Amino acid sequence: MSKLLIVGTVAFDAIETPFGKTDKILGGAGTFIGLSASFFNVESAIVSVVGEDFPQEYLDLLTNKNINIDGIEVVPGGKTFFWSGRYHNDMNSRDTLATELNVLADFKPVVPVAFQDAEIVMLGNLHPLVQSSVLDQLTAKPKLVVLDTMNFWMDCALPELLDVMKRVDVITINDEEARQLSGEYSLVKAAAKIHTMGPKYVVIKKGEHGALLFHNKDVFFAPALPLEEVFDPTGAGDTFAGGFSGYIAQSGDTSFENMKNAIIHGSNLASFCVEKFGTERMVALDKEEVLSRLQQFKALTQFEISL
Amino acid sequence: MSKLLIVGTVAFDAIETPFGKTDKILGGAGTFIGLSASFFNVESAIVSVVGEDFPQEYLDLLTNKNINIDGIEVVPGGKTFFWSGRYHNDMNSRDTLATELNVLADFKPVVPVAFQDAEIVMLGNLHPLVQSSVLDQLTAKPKLVVLDTMNFWMDCALPELLDVMKRVDVITINDEEARQLSGEYSLVKAAAKIHTMGPKYVVIKKGEHGALLFHNKDVFFAPALPLEEVFDPTGAGDTFAGGFSGYIAQSGDTSFENMKNAIIHGSNLASFCVEKFGTERMVALDKEEVLSRLQQFKALTQFEISL
Repeated sequence: MSKLLIVGTVAFDAIETPFGKTDKILGGAGTFIGLSASFFNVESAIVSVVGEDFPQEYLDLLTNKNINIDGIEVVPGGKTFFWSGRYHNDMNSRDTLATELNVLADFKPVVPVAFQDAEIVMLGNLHPLVQSSVLDQLTAKPKLVVLDTMNFWMDCALPELLDVMKRVDVITINDEEARQLSGEYSLVKAAAKIHTMGPKYVVIKKGEHGALLFHNKDVFFAPALPLEEVFDPTGAGDTFAGGFSGYIAQSGDTSFENMKNAIIHGSNLASFCVEKFGTERMVALDKEEVLSRLQQFKALTQFEISL
Repeated sequence: MSKLLIVGTVAFDAIETPFGKTDKILGGAGTFIGLSASFFNVESAIVSVVGEDFPQEYLDLLTNKNINIDGIEVVPGGKTFFWSGRYHNDMNSRDTLATELNVLADFKPVVPVAFQDAEIVMLGNLHPLVQSSVLDQLTAKPKLVVLDTMNFWMDCALPELLDVMKRVDVITINDEEARQLSGEYSLVKAAAKIHTMGPKYVVIKKGEHGALLFHNKDVFFAPALPLEEVFDPTGAGDTFAGGFSGYIAQSGDTSFENMKNAIIHGSNLASFCVEKFGTERMVALDKEEVLSRLQQFKALTQFEISL
């Protein structure tokens, strides 16, 4: 069983979509990554920070999913990171209504000793200096380091982002961010340029239009499952990353061929995430549903042309 | 060898993209469909109309690709249909600069006797009454009728479009048009609604984001090949339709399973079409290039998850 080390926010979200709105609910990149990776046979831990206002039941929920939470610092008297957003009708864009950093502002990640030799490291979307600090604490070179990031850090912390990018094997990034980071409109050209910045593997997430995996001249594509309704896209990208890194950790195989499977597993899990608000669907999801939908992914994409 | 009957414009296009612009060059839905279908072992014919200004060399080009042009009427003293457009930087949208119907205004299609019993009929984008008139002239029920259309006919000839839709097996339509026709934003719901309008198979084209094939509860997805550059998208949808119908005609197999292969062949051929202006790439393309890129499509989409 491989160890999977996850760093990412554990937070409160308040979400508004055309289908309704929520109060403060469980959210955060680290949470979604952890829940998604918990569908694989891995020993995982989340490194994060929350405030004293963070409910014990949320921490218990993670523990019950076999996620080690020794690395989640609880700041006495502190308030948990809070994000609030409203999705537009097409669900492809959103407005941020509120971002309260709270305890995240001074977050100094501490990797539990037991996970300093993790084989797979999933750096969820956070300040690049926090991501680097996690890598600094490792006592053994991981088999694979995966980095997720977003346009916010390109705008505000580009040098630090470029630094941490040099230290990772895989970057996951959405299409607009890939264009911003590379200055190239064509995603093929964008991926090639991002390769030169460090990551040997570039995963470009296109939301409802699927995801592309680039490695040198090789490309693999996984569609998103066509759904009757996307109820809430929050956490879909993190769930994808959790499925990707969780499957790699379970299989211990970091080849390009196996990354194809990891991309499919990530897409499959993400297709559940968007069916309900926040983490609701992922918390209730069972392994049989996951396997059954994986069959749908096969039917959706596999064909038998003989050449 | 199956007979493939194609109806569609044979025309002049003038195209402007961020990469350059053309004078009047060979274009038209019928032309692109015919060229694309010519990569399969089929007996095909185009039904269309041109003016006296249409160069003999263009007609010879079609004949040399083994396309029967007995059904292309040449109107003495008439002028050929002309379309001119300019693509925006992202290549996903365009402005129409000129549309001169000319001989198309009074077009009465005449299906050559030898093709009145065609097994496969590809109704390219034209006035729905012209498409219906072609079906009226058939002496035997085809194995498969495929209809392509566009938003223009939804705006200007919706009742006639709904009539011809009841008579076809497959409709190919782009995502925005599927939404307009169905009133549904979700493509899954849109396809279900379009099913009820007649076609048992609904193909939704998403341009650079690939194509979806819906049949009852079954879905298949083919990505577009990720390209370094889309040079000119003109005719890509028609080339897709030509590959789809051409492959079905060659194989004689109208099952859903085989339609998956047809969708891949259509996507494969369309990936060449966009590499140069107008028909240039399709005219020069050879079968070996087509087969080689088909291997790329397999590498792009096929994976080996064992369940």
